[in-house]
Amino acid sequence: MNSLTKNIKRILLPALGLFIAVGLAGCQSSDKSSSENKNIADKAFVEPGEYDEYYGFLSGGYSGQLSVYGIPSGRHLYTIPVFSESPTNGYGYSEETKALLNTSYGKVPWGDLHHPELSQTDGKPDGRWVFVNENNTPRIARIDLKTFRTDEIIELPNTGGNHASPFVTSNTEYVFGHSRFAIPVGDNQDVPIDSYSENFKGALSFIKVQDDGAMDIDFQILVPGYDYDLSRAGKKASSGWAFFSTYNTEEANTLLEINASKKDKDYVLAVNWKKAAEYVKQGKAETMNVEYLRNYVDSETGIAKSEIKKSVRVLDTKKVKGLVYYIPTPKSPHGLNVSPDGELIVASSKLDANVPVHSFEKMLQAIENEEFDGEVWGNPVLKYESVLAGRVENPGLGPLHTEFDGNGYAYTTNFISSNVIKWRLDDFKVVDQVDVFYSPGHLMIPGGDSGQPWGKYMLVMNKITKDRYLPTGPELFHPAQLFDISGDKMELINDFPTEAEPHYAQAIPADMVKENQVRFFKLEDNNHPYAAKSESATKVERNGNEVHVSMTSIRSHFAPDNIEGVKVGDTVYFHVTNLEQSWDVPHGFGIKGATNAQLLIMPGETLTLTWQPTKTGIYPFYCTDFCSALHQEMQGYVRVSPQGSDVPISFGTGS
Amino acid sequence: MNSLTKNIKRILLPALGLFIAVGLAGCQSSDKSSSENKNIADKAFVEPGEYDEYYGFLSGGYSGQLSVYGIPSGRHLYTIPVFSESPTNGYGYSEETKALLNTSYGKVPWGDLHHPELSQTDGKPDGRWVFVNENNTPRIARIDLKTFRTDEIIELPNTGGNHASPFVTSNTEYVFGHSRFAIPVGDNQDVPIDSYSENFKGALSFIKVQDDGAMDIDFQILVPGYDYDLSRAGKKASSGWAFFSTYNTEEANTLLEINASKKDKDYVLAVNWKKAAEYVKQGKAETMNVEYLRNYVDSETGIAKSEIKKSVRVLDTKKVKGLVYYIPTPKSPHGLNVSPDGELIVASSKLDANVPVHSFEKMLQAIENEEFDGEVWGNPVLKYESVLAGRVENPGLGPLHTEFDGNGYAYTTNFISSNVIKWRLDDFKVVDQVDVFYSPGHLMIPGGDSGQPWGKYMLVMNKITKDRYLPTGPELFHPAQLFDISGDKMELINDFPTEAEPHYAQAIPADMVKENQVRFFKLEDNNHPYAAKSESATKVERNGNEVHVSMTSIRSHFAPDNIEGVKVGDTVYFHVTNLEQSWDVPHGFGIKGATNAQLLIMPGETLTLTWQPTKTGIYPFYCTDFCSALHQEMQGYVRVSPQGSDVPISFGTGS
Repeated sequence: MNSLTKNIKRILLPALGLFIAVGLAGCQSSDKSSSENKNIADKAFVEPGEYDEYYGFLSGGYSGQLSVYGIPSGRHLYTIPVFSESPTNGYGYSEETKALLNTSYGKVPWGDLHHPELSQTDGKPDGRWVFVNENNTPRIARIDLKTFRTDEIIELPNTGGNHASPFVTSNTEYVFGHSRFAIPVGDNQDVPIDSYSENFKGALSFIKVQDDGAMDIDFQILVPGYDYDLSRAGKKASSGWAFFSTYNTEEANTLLEINASKKDKDYVLAVNWKKAAEYVKQGKAETMNVEYLRNYVDSETGIAKSEIKKSVRVLDTKKVKGLVYYIPTPKSPHGLNVSPDGELIVASSKLDANVPVHSFEKMLQAIENEEFDGEVWGNPVLKYESVLAGRVENPGLGPLHTEFDGNGYAYTTNFISSNVIKWRLDDFKVVDQVDVFYSPGHLMIPGGDSGQPWGKYMLVMNKITKDRYLPTGPELFHPAQLFDISGDKMELINDFPTEAEPHYAQAIPADMVKENQVRFFKLEDNNHPYAAKSESATKVERNGNEVHVSMTSIRSHFAPDNIEGVKVGDTVYFHVTNLEQSWDVPHGFGIKGATNAQLLIMPGETLTLTWQPTKTGIYPFYCTDFCSALHQEMQGYVRVSPQGSDVPISFGTGS
Repeated sequence: MNSLTKNIKRILLPALGLFIAVGLAGCQSSDKSSSENKNIADKAFVEPGEYDEYYGFLSGGYSGQLSVYGIPSGRHLYTIPVFSESPTNGYGYSEETKALLNTSYGKVPWGDLHHPELSQTDGKPDGRWVFVNENNTPRIARIDLKTFRTDEIIELPNTGGNHASPFVTSNTEYVFGHSRFAIPVGDNQDVPIDSYSENFKGALSFIKVQDDGAMDIDFQILVPGYDYDLSRAGKKASSGWAFFSTYNTEEANTLLEINASKKDKDYVLAVNWKKAAEYVKQGKAETMNVEYLRNYVDSETGIAKSEIKKSVRVLDTKKVKGLVYYIPTPKSPHGLNVSPDGELIVASSKLDANVPVHSFEKMLQAIENEEFDGEVWGNPVLKYESVLAGRVENPGLGPLHTEFDGNGYAYTTNFISSNVIKWRLDDFKVVDQVDVFYSPGHLMIPGGDSGQPWGKYMLVMNKITKDRYLPTGPELFHPAQLFDISGDKMELINDFPTEAEPHYAQAIPADMVKENQVRFFKLEDNNHPYAAKSESATKVERNGNEVHVSMTSIRSHFAPDNIEGVKVGDTVYFHVTNLEQSWDVPHGFGIKGATNAQLLIMPGETLTLTWQPTKTGIYPFYCTDFCSALHQEMQGYVRVSPQGSDVPISFGTGS
């Protein structure tokens, strides 16, 4: 037993909290002093008026949103609301956006977003969309990079903990996700939890992506009730396949920190998705009744809608063979990454002393030669040695994730020893290592999980912040560290906090996104049913207890800005159309006492705030976005009279 | 008519949109080229591992939250949830925090936060609290700088648009706010909007702050129904007074961009708050029946509570004299700032060609000499020339806000001409000017509105972003620019986007805050009624349709992690206690399908998530914050059976 293995055994004892302490102790000694870093400001600092080189899309983790950072500056450019309500711009509150958060459980105001994945063409990021996963109430969203808006969210049935998600095939034919927490498949299963091994299953979802981005589940593949952790599609040589790391092949349902760490090896699951798609076309899938929602923004009206789906096509690998192969992989592999040429499959075994690297070519040979070592659900387990290309020896403690620079090197994070190693793909030798602060999860090289890495920068997303920045009480943003990897040695050049808890990130050269930006919406294309496209078209109409206000905003007034005739018990819909037709002139709309958020209305757009006044009185409303020199003057009033009052509807801008 | 005045008249014509265009055109020419800025990276870049010099507290504007940025790096350190729901950490969703968002209109999920104000001792920021205002549903919040958490929110009755808020007196005796949008005072007034001049009033609230920070409204002062825009307390010489800018002294109720810009002069309102407080003690206030809420975190249990208040003491300046004086001030003054010595009152007249500066000493003399020019509600209007100390001539177009460096200079933003001027306090001469990008609102010098400015940096918060950073579709974060003001010339050294729309900011030397941080909560001090302080104390109890789960979290498991006996129709309360007792080890808690957010539980703390399952099934829950090497294993299951099922409550962490 070498000392590393000894260390691992020692720290795997119940006091797992020690992990972090060990990691920290290991780091402190080699922090670079300022004097060594004289030139790093020049590398990371983006001068006022200059642009960053890359858009970085960092998951917000438990924020449920996608954060956009400039690389290399670390500037926080924007946050895209996706799975969580965003009071800031009314996302999830306005009538136009709230359907995006619908699920088969009702409207869910929060999500846990782990992994952004850029759409690809020919295995390269193409700048059209970013897909992101929701882990808690399993969903996948599609964000349009022309508008930086969420356009579609699809729910995944039969799934618990959609973690190995959302990764795309080389031409974005599919985006796929997989269960982290096995559950009984089929809806509404009331079974004892300890019937786990009998009833709980994993479900892998392949979601077809149309040319316009529209998503729907093409099929699911049922596999044993392991925890499926991470994944990537094959590429080039291995396109047509997808690979998944697994843990808890013990199928424990309690105290997994102990019970899911018992086996010497878990698996990498190799899935032949191209064959699966063919099987589905051939009618080999069963139809299972399940309920899931697809929410999308109607491109005509700009209003999000929910579509209820009632069934899904399922390939059960207990019955349908030839789709999945199990590659034994030491102790609870976490990260799963495929080299740019598609040949190497790196599955970091978080509780092992080495990083095993599998060979796709050897895998195909092993299948052909039937070099098997048992089976799972009647599907072959391949011989470990037959598939193994090699191992990265002594990588550090707790290896997690790997990306590639396109120049023959891979980079792997070590959570426990708080460092990153650089190693050669052709002989698996470690050639460099740097400490990070502290406890890195994912790392990211722009294009670094695709067929075309841009190997200039590496961003490491750490899990422990502690004393890294000015403290902000008990709760801290998570830290990211940026390295220049253009030379032989990795060089730390920037260090910045990132909102909430970024897990994974992807980045793309700025030019591939920046030129396509929609800067405002054309008023002539606005087909919102309550749009007022000019002040003369504004109106206030009563329909029973509903009052619809078609209002306009333009620098620096609303029309109408005086409204009477609203009564306690009414539901008032403020449909506000922003008449501006130039970039960066939003108007906001807030009204006192609304138990709702605000609207932030982009030029040319119509958004709707619903308000149910419960008390008589005079209610001011105003523009919430400082829009012009006379912004402060952009205000109005609504008078609310008692139920049964005979004050008639009246409205206007002036006497 | 000089050319500046001509310009102003021309651009005040209806096409007010031109304002911005004019501003931009004026800026572009003098952007500094990279070559001139060779040394700025050294001034603004904070090296990895180094700390920023100042905590910057930037209002989030329509985000409703307070953003914390490092100065000079521009690092986004944290966002403090205040007036808006924050799915990220469950603020406003958890049982412990949701009462903070209660108002007399119900729970309001969003706010519009404009101005942070640090608590002061002897006129200097002291690092105890930050007060912040909510503009839309008028409230003031107090944030504790030991925890970076919102501890208290108080509603302001009789108020519309709490904009001139929340400013403090020199020893934080009071924090005060004022109506931007006049409304009829007294609750539930159903009157015609065009009875504005008869019925609509301004209400100035003085909120007493106790030694422990607890707030309550001591009294309100009723004044005419103008729009009160900004404010500062007097200091040193002028302590005991407060000053408010006003616009819409025309008392228009519609199309204010025209109707509130008609008069040649509006007012600065000078309020003798010390005398008002004495009058209240002497029983000169009337009691008015109004309803407002005070929400506060119970320091014993950590659970926020709401207290309904039913009346407020009011001093009506129609009846009680000697409290307020009106200082004529040209055309719609916006910013209102008081020099560090308390002598000069700068009220930037946004539609005038000069910045008028009033003298406190001259004001007292004018009052003594009765140099009056009419009256308002029976209170004196002082003669403009009698109070004027001088004018900053030709400052630029659209002057808004001013701060001070403590070295004899003031700095004023010009919204329309997109620049900042530096001028001398002793002769009002402009000595420097810099262009900014684009359309600045507030500017901030650490301590720059107090008696003790730290005059090294100046942060300018601009309203138009446009092409300043990589574009992010139609919606953009607002831009901030940081200047070194330690030399004769203002020097641009950093430029970074800021989330949502910062209005005002304050900053304080890091040492005054960083040493006081609470890093975790002591478990022994946890008096939450459902806390489980050890795994042996965990339990699941049914009480009718309520199920209370007292759960613990520690690296790397929950106890219990298997729960059965929950039924459709139940309300389940997950009270999760984080047993960790060291810094930066939060645990999260999310459960599939909950129509609720997550919990992010700090060490030693108990938080509660409410869940109402509507369908039978197996529901995974898990830790949402990557806490340890075995974080992925930190999961559990709840079984939900049909209504009427006889599955008994059972729970545990394995057999």
